[in-house]
Amino acid sequence: MVVTSPLPVQRLATLSPQRRREILDRAGSHVFDPTVQAAAAAALRAVRERGDAALVEYTEIFDGVRLAPDRLAVPAEEIAEAPGRIGSGLRAALREAIDRARRYNERLLPRSWLEPLEPGITAGVRFTPIAGVGVYIPSGKGTFPSTAVTILTPAVVAGVDPIVVVVPPRADGSIDPAVLAVCALVGVRRVIRCNGVAGVAALAVGTPTVPAMPAVVGPGNPYVTATQLLAQTAGTRVLALLGPTEAVILADGGADPRRVALDLISEAEHGAESAALLVTDSAALAAAVAAAVPALLGGLPPERARFAEAAIVRNGGIFLAETMDDAAAFVDAFAPEHLLIVAANPRQLLDRIRHAGEILLGAWSPFSAANYAIGVPAALPTGRAARAASGITVLSFLKASSVAELDADGLRRLRPAVEALGTYEGFPAHVRAVVER
Amino acid sequence: MVVTSPLPVQRLATLSPQRRREILDRAGSHVFDPTVQAAAAAALRAVRERGDAALVEYTEIFDGVRLAPDRLAVPAEEIAEAPGRIGSGLRAALREAIDRARRYNERLLPRSWLEPLEPGITAGVRFTPIAGVGVYIPSGKGTFPSTAVTILTPAVVAGVDPIVVVVPPRADGSIDPAVLAVCALVGVRRVIRCNGVAGVAALAVGTPTVPAMPAVVGPGNPYVTATQLLAQTAGTRVLALLGPTEAVILADGGADPRRVALDLISEAEHGAESAALLVTDSAALAAAVAAAVPALLGGLPPERARFAEAAIVRNGGIFLAETMDDAAAFVDAFAPEHLLIVAANPRQLLDRIRHAGEILLGAWSPFSAANYAIGVPAALPTGRAARAASGITVLSFLKASSVAELDADGLRRLRPAVEALGTYEGFPAHVRAVVER
Repeated sequence: MVVTSPLPVQRLATLSPQRRREILDRAGSHVFDPTVQAAAAAALRAVRERGDAALVEYTEIFDGVRLAPDRLAVPAEEIAEAPGRIGSGLRAALREAIDRARRYNERLLPRSWLEPLEPGITAGVRFTPIAGVGVYIPSGKGTFPSTAVTILTPAVVAGVDPIVVVVPPRADGSIDPAVLAVCALVGVRRVIRCNGVAGVAALAVGTPTVPAMPAVVGPGNPYVTATQLLAQTAGTRVLALLGPTEAVILADGGADPRRVALDLISEAEHGAESAALLVTDSAALAAAVAAAVPALLGGLPPERARFAEAAIVRNGGIFLAETMDDAAAFVDAFAPEHLLIVAANPRQLLDRIRHAGEILLGAWSPFSAANYAIGVPAALPTGRAARAASGITVLSFLKASSVAELDADGLRRLRPAVEALGTYEGFPAHVRAVVER
Repeated sequence: MVVTSPLPVQRLATLSPQRRREILDRAGSHVFDPTVQAAAAAALRAVRERGDAALVEYTEIFDGVRLAPDRLAVPAEEIAEAPGRIGSGLRAALREAIDRARRYNERLLPRSWLEPLEPGITAGVRFTPIAGVGVYIPSGKGTFPSTAVTILTPAVVAGVDPIVVVVPPRADGSIDPAVLAVCALVGVRRVIRCNGVAGVAALAVGTPTVPAMPAVVGPGNPYVTATQLLAQTAGTRVLALLGPTEAVILADGGADPRRVALDLISEAEHGAESAALLVTDSAALAAAVAAAVPALLGGLPPERARFAEAAIVRNGGIFLAETMDDAAAFVDAFAPEHLLIVAANPRQLLDRIRHAGEILLGAWSPFSAANYAIGVPAALPTGRAARAASGITVLSFLKASSVAELDADGLRRLRPAVEALGTYEGFPAHVRAVVER
């Protein structure tokens, strides 16, 4: 049932503290639901005990596809041929998206350095690729080659090897050729066809077909995400927890209401757990967007319209602030995954926002362009994680080793501090290693 | 019972696959033990339900200190006076250590940028401090002002605000004045005196005295670490999982055996779960170090000697490789927290090592100098996490927001890619937001 009357406009100044908390603390995801946790633990156990056989079982039960075990690993030829099996327009789009993501991430690459900081004391840092990564690309409810672009490209720019991709098969047992095409275009050669939960478990503990990886990443349903969290018990690092998507538009009275409504709906159509918000100081804009949304919802396919309605009406909303300062403060507290600022001077408002995964500036920078083509990351922190986490870029796939080299003089210079601290903390061997050298 | 005869020397080439796996997969920590997990969950529940009263209870039960609730927050004057209450040598050492850590971390600061990548397409990144952090500094079994230096200094350099420190009280209810002195010297004003497990739980869920933080960090026993992991259920990010310390020395025949033995023991004295290894291609060096260790152990206080023996004999060892290449490959697979390379040309071996939290070069760069005084991080990835994680630096306390701005021409340039990808993935509103603009 899609709304037909204008949406309500909520005044920020009169939100009850509880309602405000509900909006900010949208946990959204059910990752920590005991049932979900138990299912993830069972998958990890099954894969640890039965290896590839568990992958086959899970894929049959949850994806409805019966695979011979030797079909789990997608053959190299199938990957190599994938770009030729998709339309030329799609292929060109993927190439362009990869190209821009590559350039953006190359520009982000940090430089290693090692230099004298004081006489006799040299120090620095070496950035090196992580030792391997398992990437989960969802499938089933949709097709997500753009997810493959935004995660695999920076992993390749970082130089990670191996990169192992897990993708659930479609009903006929095949893998989305667009996802395989991305793998081929970026140079990823290992793709595992299997159920997501079991596949992530395999990336943590290893099976004959799936090597255990020191890190995993990729957006999934709560079961997949819960399995990623549990993968930590096997010493696997989770590079990011990626939940349902969220978009906030921060706009002043000069924004075009129809464009704002289009952008609001575009991020809202992802799923019923998504959230889309407009925050503005303009009552006229709020009212115009509230009036424009229902007709736009009506123009979407029924399932997308239902998702978008849930995201805007139930999980998000249209919020009216007294001033743009108040509006910006609310957005900053929300810490959205995606933020679009449409205002007379968006760069000035930028300085008021500290917490957002992505910040798009101005009326010509819609969310969907960033999702698909600009080259900035599209796998971003959700559920208020933008207060303490970053999107997936080349920086996610590098680690820093600190490096230091002293000479005899440098060590002599540090000796009093080592003696004082080692003695106070009660570590005599620490002191002796310097004093008796 | 401290060993008196020379330690065994183990040949890498003849290690059984199982023994090799045991050495590499030292999980060491019992974070995922069900008892530990249940205790952490109980603490989180207690603090959620009873707030500050639970902090008081836990501190009485586990730390043996009965506190009035109004003593949980350490008064500002007590922090401010702390530098005057410690010896001048210790104070000078802390100032020096903070100073060097500050300079190292300032040099690591990444620069934000926003620049045109193509006509009409501007993109970039903004690095901003995370929205707040809770830092756990252990106490009780020892005193750890150096831990406060190595974690708080980069948090301050990043500009994180608030920084909330949790420290368990000593038997008389007071807080280690050296830890408070570090807080005063770096400018941290909020210190909570309470049990570690309950304190970390409070940093996740909040109490009247302890604000909920979006991130936590700090080395602790398995109960504290398990509570940090569970803090993720409250939306709190764990910046690093820091387990028992590990040190590897990679040395060739030119290394001085006594110095190598001193360095081996210095990291080994931390605790019975620590690990210390020598890996060398020189049978002579291996034998000489094996002979030198027992006498050095005998010179330590009994508890330190017991710890060091466990770390070297049970958890670590002296390993002889056929070649320095083999030795380096083994060290790389081990992915140690701390690595010291003592060889004719340490920088050449550096290029063979990809995975180590810290790499020290040459005979004048002992672990204890890096722990206390060089300024490089001393809170580093353990348990093979160095394959996919970094030490705690200013980078740990920053997050990246991607930024993009298109003009009409830039968006026009991206339109075909957005149309092709949005259509293929089945997101019509994504396409409309660009096409109908």
